[in-house]
Amino acid sequence: MKALLVVAHGSRRAESNDEVRALTRSVAKRASGKYDTVACAFLELADPLIPAGVEALIDAGAEDITVVPYFLSAGRHVVEDIPAEVAKVNLPEGVSVRIAPYVGESDAMADLLLAQSKLVRG
Amino acid sequence: MKALLVVAHGSRRAESNDEVRALTRSVAKRASGKYDTVACAFLELADPLIPAGVEALIDAGAEDITVVPYFLSAGRHVVEDIPAEVAKVNLPEGVSVRIAPYVGESDAMADLLLAQSKLVRG
Repeated sequence: MKALLVVAHGSRRAESNDEVRALTRSVAKRASGKYDTVACAFLELADPLIPAGVEALIDAGAEDITVVPYFLSAGRHVVEDIPAEVAKVNLPEGVSVRIAPYVGESDAMADLLLAQSKLVRG
Repeated sequence: MKALLVVAHGSRRAESNDEVRALTRSVAKRASGKYDTVACAFLELADPLIPAGVEALIDAGAEDITVVPYFLSAGRHVVEDIPAEVAKVNLPEGVSVRIAPYVGESDAMADLLLAQSKLVRG
């Protein structure tokens, strides 16, 4: 079973965390055939935290877990903190967790920015 | 003359600001026919700050300026701080500045996340 875990920073502002959850549902709708399940987790300030998010996927039967960091730059959070949080989980035999490049590194981001600029208001 | 200003948060980490500058160059390469010039500015911690970034575009002859927030959620920075910084600029007659939706709101973000997940390492 293949699972995708979208990892965001987490915010004291509940609406920001809900934005991540809505995005995760949107990813799940598009993920059929690629991932059996898609969930989100947070580095801090919101639930589930990363270890709990990974463990929930394992409990649900995931064997091949991909973590994708929803971050714009390769700061300490991406380079050190997310790998460290993932490493806190004791993986059962046969379960692997890998970390994908963060979204800010995507070649598609420049086009996404240009497309947003066309949606200008006022 | 049409200009696009990519606005990011700004970081104490120089590499993160340089990532925004590199992204801005990438946007500029794709913007021919849409924008005559593309630049970036920062809400804090890096140069140019937003008012200086807008003023530099005006000095360069821009009349129609679109600001696109390189932010993932609609927090205070997007809702209050960026409009307030833009409003600090005294616009000459004939010059307009409008603010586009932030990148996290893009319908394309879910597909971008899925595409990143395929680039998993290790």
